[in-house]
Amino acid sequence: MDIVVVGSVALDSISTPYGSAEECLGGSASYAALAASYFTSIKLVAVVGEDFPESARGLFRRRGIDCAGLEVAPGKTFRWGGRYHKDMNHRDTLFTQLNVFEHFHPKLPPAYRDAPILFLANIHPALQLEVFDQISRPRLVAVDTMNLWIETALDDLKAVLARADLVFVNEEEARQLTGHALLPAAVAQIRALGPRWVVVKKGEHGALLFTPESRFAVPAVLLERVFDPTGAGDAFAGGFLGHLARAGRFDDEELRRAMGFGTVLASFTTEHFSVDRITDLTADQIRGRCAELHAFTRWTPE
Amino acid sequence: MDIVVVGSVALDSISTPYGSAEECLGGSASYAALAASYFTSIKLVAVVGEDFPESARGLFRRRGIDCAGLEVAPGKTFRWGGRYHKDMNHRDTLFTQLNVFEHFHPKLPPAYRDAPILFLANIHPALQLEVFDQISRPRLVAVDTMNLWIETALDDLKAVLARADLVFVNEEEARQLTGHALLPAAVAQIRALGPRWVVVKKGEHGALLFTPESRFAVPAVLLERVFDPTGAGDAFAGGFLGHLARAGRFDDEELRRAMGFGTVLASFTTEHFSVDRITDLTADQIRGRCAELHAFTRWTPE
Repeated sequence: MDIVVVGSVALDSISTPYGSAEECLGGSASYAALAASYFTSIKLVAVVGEDFPESARGLFRRRGIDCAGLEVAPGKTFRWGGRYHKDMNHRDTLFTQLNVFEHFHPKLPPAYRDAPILFLANIHPALQLEVFDQISRPRLVAVDTMNLWIETALDDLKAVLARADLVFVNEEEARQLTGHALLPAAVAQIRALGPRWVVVKKGEHGALLFTPESRFAVPAVLLERVFDPTGAGDAFAGGFLGHLARAGRFDDEELRRAMGFGTVLASFTTEHFSVDRITDLTADQIRGRCAELHAFTRWTPE
Repeated sequence: MDIVVVGSVALDSISTPYGSAEECLGGSASYAALAASYFTSIKLVAVVGEDFPESARGLFRRRGIDCAGLEVAPGKTFRWGGRYHKDMNHRDTLFTQLNVFEHFHPKLPPAYRDAPILFLANIHPALQLEVFDQISRPRLVAVDTMNLWIETALDDLKAVLARADLVFVNEEEARQLTGHALLPAAVAQIRALGPRWVVVKKGEHGALLFTPESRFAVPAVLLERVFDPTGAGDAFAGGFLGHLARAGRFDDEELRRAMGFGTVLASFTTEHFSVDRITDLTADQIRGRCAELHAFTRWTPE
């Protein structure tokens, strides 16, 4: 199954306690598309400016990502700057330059319109909404968002969620969106907005999956070193949806396995700056880390 | 295998967003002993004052806990008061009245001295140290501690850890004790101090087990409601050690299972004030929740 990924492509400037990187490839769609590209064919929808480096485009091409929907608009590429603190769980946004994103409207090429899986990565929910009229009837619509849209575009976000099968939220977003401190209550309220599956991302504490039938928890991979957490959540979504697309089934077993692959792709992402660690993985590396993650979680009751 | 539990017995006054309780049974040894009592025979070592209510003593007796080592000293029982905030992850200590604890020295009755498992629950490490001379050669020495002793009694704590097989720490304590933000590095340094097994408790995010051979993560039980988190860590230790005592083996499989039982006893503890939820559990309730926890964590890689 192909996946259409709609989101942002950016040039990020990031500083962490371990170093810094200037104008490197970033954006929700970049991380998600690259992570998912290890599992299935990806069709990208985003916008860049005339200054978008050929080298960055080359990364997508090398991973076989269809860039027919990667519009080049007059002006400069979206830029984001962030700084991480010592504990890496908190970051400051140093600047956001929307640039070409200011006038962007996603346009799906005709070849994209029958894709069975649609992933609306984190962009303004009003733009996410515009996609629904351009795609026939995907078997799975997955959505990501962020705290900013909960604060500033809640109605649009709710309209998106009403048409979503699955939503990725982090813990704080789940609480912010619902006012519930405890996750079971927060998730019940999110499911009432539309999505039957809710994935709650908890960063270094792992992730939770809520379906109508069951709940599932997976820990994060325990890394000796976290270099740059940027994009880990987007890569999680990419690995998760990539596995589902490859499996072709969305049952409980495959959803749980997807949580594993999401976790694995997120862990690789944090090991280097930008997308550097998820452009040249091998199938064996992914399978190997997935087996390690399973060994980390396996036990038997009496 | 019997377990000797040395620690505090207190009268707690607790307020949470859901209510409050005055002078109810608390203390590290109380929670640990009650939780462990579902698995094996427990011998308690602690001190109370002449005002210790017969009803509280009755709770120990009903669970078959040997109170020969529960000294009654002239004066008042140790008291602690705490208040939890809305998110329940943070609490303020409102008061601490050491009372009879001020002059306490643990004394093990002769019948305790051959116990195969020793649990030094959270008390001043100088008191924990005094126990080693009173017990022959336990097969397993497990230790718990708190941030206060890391700040004020580090040398004593290190002397205790040097003689411990297993230590329970929470995430912040692991970082505070070692200065490492990432757990693998923190745990390596803790293991260098003595214990070959390290359990890192992460509250609502579950717990991690580090052994020389492997690492294991278990999530917390996802509760609809957390009533009072007091003592959950102590009950975790009790359930963990209780299972090991009953199993009689300390291999990887049993250690992982112990993490499950620790998690289950901790989860019950938070469902009511004080020890109220862990005085009348049935074997079926414990087994049932353990099976639920397993279903919550079970998956298979490809």
